[in-house]
Amino acid sequence: MDSVSEREPWQAIAKRKQDEREQKIPAEWRLPSTLLPKQDVDDVFNFPQTSGFFTLRELELTNVDASKVVAKIAAGEWTSEEVTRAVCKRAAFAQQLVNCLTEICFDEAIARAKELDRKLKEDGQVVGPLHGLAISLKDQFNIPGLDSTLGYVSRIGQPASSPSTLVTILQNAGAVVYVKTNVPATLMMGETINNVFGRSLNPHNRTLTPGGSSGGESALITLGGSYLGVGTDIGGSIRHPCSFTGLYGLRPSQGRVSYQNVQNTFVGQEAVKSSAGPMCRSPDDIRLFMSSILAEKPWRLDPYCLPIPWREEEEILPQQLCFGIANHDGFVSATPPLVRAIEIVKQKLLDAGHRVIEYIPHEMQESRVLINKMWSADGGEEFQRDTDLSGEPLHPDLEAWLGHSANAPRPSVSDMWRVQNQRTLLAQKWSERWENTQSQTGTGRPIDGLIMPSLPFPAVKHDSSYPSHYGTLSPLLDLTTGSFPVTRVDLEKDQMPADRPILSGRDGMVKKFYKGPENHKNAPVGLAVIGRRLEEEKVTAMLKVLSEIVGRDAAHL
Amino acid sequence: MDSVSEREPWQAIAKRKQDEREQKIPAEWRLPSTLLPKQDVDDVFNFPQTSGFFTLRELELTNVDASKVVAKIAAGEWTSEEVTRAVCKRAAFAQQLVNCLTEICFDEAIARAKELDRKLKEDGQVVGPLHGLAISLKDQFNIPGLDSTLGYVSRIGQPASSPSTLVTILQNAGAVVYVKTNVPATLMMGETINNVFGRSLNPHNRTLTPGGSSGGESALITLGGSYLGVGTDIGGSIRHPCSFTGLYGLRPSQGRVSYQNVQNTFVGQEAVKSSAGPMCRSPDDIRLFMSSILAEKPWRLDPYCLPIPWREEEEILPQQLCFGIANHDGFVSATPPLVRAIEIVKQKLLDAGHRVIEYIPHEMQESRVLINKMWSADGGEEFQRDTDLSGEPLHPDLEAWLGHSANAPRPSVSDMWRVQNQRTLLAQKWSERWENTQSQTGTGRPIDGLIMPSLPFPAVKHDSSYPSHYGTLSPLLDLTTGSFPVTRVDLEKDQMPADRPILSGRDGMVKKFYKGPENHKNAPVGLAVIGRRLEEEKVTAMLKVLSEIVGRDAAHL
Repeated sequence: MDSVSEREPWQAIAKRKQDEREQKIPAEWRLPSTLLPKQDVDDVFNFPQTSGFFTLRELELTNVDASKVVAKIAAGEWTSEEVTRAVCKRAAFAQQLVNCLTEICFDEAIARAKELDRKLKEDGQVVGPLHGLAISLKDQFNIPGLDSTLGYVSRIGQPASSPSTLVTILQNAGAVVYVKTNVPATLMMGETINNVFGRSLNPHNRTLTPGGSSGGESALITLGGSYLGVGTDIGGSIRHPCSFTGLYGLRPSQGRVSYQNVQNTFVGQEAVKSSAGPMCRSPDDIRLFMSSILAEKPWRLDPYCLPIPWREEEEILPQQLCFGIANHDGFVSATPPLVRAIEIVKQKLLDAGHRVIEYIPHEMQESRVLINKMWSADGGEEFQRDTDLSGEPLHPDLEAWLGHSANAPRPSVSDMWRVQNQRTLLAQKWSERWENTQSQTGTGRPIDGLIMPSLPFPAVKHDSSYPSHYGTLSPLLDLTTGSFPVTRVDLEKDQMPADRPILSGRDGMVKKFYKGPENHKNAPVGLAVIGRRLEEEKVTAMLKVLSEIVGRDAAHL
Repeated sequence: MDSVSEREPWQAIAKRKQDEREQKIPAEWRLPSTLLPKQDVDDVFNFPQTSGFFTLRELELTNVDASKVVAKIAAGEWTSEEVTRAVCKRAAFAQQLVNCLTEICFDEAIARAKELDRKLKEDGQVVGPLHGLAISLKDQFNIPGLDSTLGYVSRIGQPASSPSTLVTILQNAGAVVYVKTNVPATLMMGETINNVFGRSLNPHNRTLTPGGSSGGESALITLGGSYLGVGTDIGGSIRHPCSFTGLYGLRPSQGRVSYQNVQNTFVGQEAVKSSAGPMCRSPDDIRLFMSSILAEKPWRLDPYCLPIPWREEEEILPQQLCFGIANHDGFVSATPPLVRAIEIVKQKLLDAGHRVIEYIPHEMQESRVLINKMWSADGGEEFQRDTDLSGEPLHPDLEAWLGHSANAPRPSVSDMWRVQNQRTLLAQKWSERWENTQSQTGTGRPIDGLIMPSLPFPAVKHDSSYPSHYGTLSPLLDLTTGSFPVTRVDLEKDQMPADRPILSGRDGMVKKFYKGPENHKNAPVGLAVIGRRLEEEKVTAMLKVLSEIVGRDAAHL
């Protein structure tokens, strides 16, 4: 008896799942082949406006941010139904251009929108601050009746029976769920690709990745197929996709956004934790999301949520801010587009009367070492188990890191205690150093935030694994971190200076990896602002300041 | 070369340490042998009043709670110096009766008190809400220049170079540190005994333990040698000693009280965490401690502290409360003194117009299984390493549990991920069940707290390892839990009924273990009130309500 040989080939199972997904797109929302951009058309960012596929009204309803949508619906000027239909259509369109969706429930969404419209008419008031707003969710979030495969073939056909607590909270606040979005299988890769749903593309340049692991979200939101989506981040998975596509995003500290009953990688691993947070096109929408879910008192439903409401008093910023600024971490330098973005922001901050000081996060290097030990602490057991179940291969990058061929070492529990203690000591060191900047800022306070890139480079070509990134410190030390767009790669300005000093062997690899701006053509360039732990209100308010300083150009990348 | 044979015997090193401790007690505070109660005098609780060793003024200054002390000092009626001298003397006295101290710094304390008196006189205002108050600390807390041995011989002579962050916070708030208190080596035992300092005794009956692991604290505070002490609790180590000696105590949720730079067992173990919290003689003192340290914004000094100030609005309780009540957990029943205490509290709550419903915490049994896996996850490596260094033996109970002879299994990291995930699911189940009591309470809210014993029995004889206890659920699910005294063992009323049903094999063991009230003569009987996570304000307010309902008798056990 060889049960493996009798098993249906994983390719067939995946193909059936993809067909099912396609069937969920109504015929009238399928792009005719005459309209579909050819495969060699790289930039499809403006295609929604220029394709003629959408009515002016549909564009009006979808070319706005979430804050505008909820205001219009609450005012009775727009209905949830028409908004939901428009954004569903645009999501269907995005799927056909950049392959960003996993699960689709348009019919249920439209039915729910109608119900919300009826309620608003009857009651004369919204059910909550997100009344009628369609919100997209990374594939990890459970919606009853839909799979949460995380891109694993073995998880196809196992629909969730109960919603993630965050889904309940969003629905209680009036939101409509309509799609889930693509991820790399395992979630632990910078490129959004898996054996079930394939690869997601960057709308600004389809030869580039929209980032990962929340790359289905970034691709979808960028094309206007969602106003606001929920991603997750344990090493950059919200921040990298936002940087790569020109979006705003927030990696909150643990306990602000419920992660209960959410499918995940490394189940039960707690040395460093993934955070769920918003990805969107304006800082106002981050505020809308955070304040709305916290108004629902999530700590009553999820014991791991902190009883900290949205603190409006923490949003009130001092007149003059002082930011730390870094374009390297002492080990790896940012490449020219990111360095230029830092310079733009720095100059605009100074022009606006704020202060900046250099603050090089040398701690980043230790954070990389520690977090990697945490991520690999099961020796790859989970990745391998979940792929072996169907016989599908692990992505080569993961196979090399934690697959059978890697034969990854398995630390003991005592080893992990030591690693965890090192993390605690690093957190203390970081906090003390931050606190001590009080003597340098000139504001009487420590720096308000640290502005630096989330990665040394803008969006990269497919199948290029990152040689390095700056994503590990924030999750390791649980620092609230926001992402914001600044500019776009410039073919002239972003050449690598021949005389750039090399900080380390790894820095040399990054310099070599960045072959020039041509390799990142049209890519947005975003930065991060790192706060302290549980400073969601302040970081969101700082994102607003930064968005205003950087100007509307970036917001409309 | 046999380095072991050249090593100084651990007994000699320990003896020298004990001698040093004795030297730190000034001659005038040493009890003459004529005054010292004989070894067979069990009850020394009232000895401070009756011995004639203290002046009336010294008794006046020490027979009060901490809240009174800070009020008197702030009002200029008492000086910190006289209070500190009095409590130091009484601590020295307690040491001679019940062996509760590890480290002593009376001279530094009195110097600091003088300095605070001078400052108050000069500035006309207190430096903080704890101005001039002497506070005792469990041995784990670092005070520069003093050892933090945790009762390990191998740690003798390694004085701390920097203070625990909590010590800094307390000092910033005006407190005076003067002694550290005894613990079981490893901290993971219910009896306070170690090879360095020996055994601590229960002042109500010296043949009984004052509990553990914060048993030096409970013994000291009970004898009036401290107003307020800081203990720690990962499985009952604040609650059990409070129950055994008639004190109030609080096991806060993680993040309210700094645990930074504190010596600990299982360093880096984070699946379940120890909490630091106050032990004292009144609920007002719990409030004083918590509100004072939170006013110092500890989150700026310790990144693992939550930015949640003391929320006065959360102290305002509804007129009518509804408590869950349990005298068993479905697996092990409380013995007669505890059952009687529950009945007393229940009746007094009803008489005062509050409500009660039965709420049996069946989840306790799973919590025992899970927490034990977490505690033993290194297979005893740490215990063994720290004792092997000096050659001292592990206590037989620990040796049998996690020592060389136990040859404890070492789970893999994957095993621990599974255990951690089970804990998360248990927390969700507990929270949902609690939330669902809303339909039963008649108050429109879920139960406000769960009143139950922390252990099935009152203080036990020395060298009796507990067959069971109820201490694991609160740390495992990070539930704010308070302790309060209710009554005292009654030789008539507390006989075990012959027909008591047996819930389980373990319950049979507990029944057998409780040989009758004679074995617990004179022991206080305390209970716990369990709240939800991060409800320190509410639980403290409920302790106040309970203390008023139970009456002054219990407070003056």
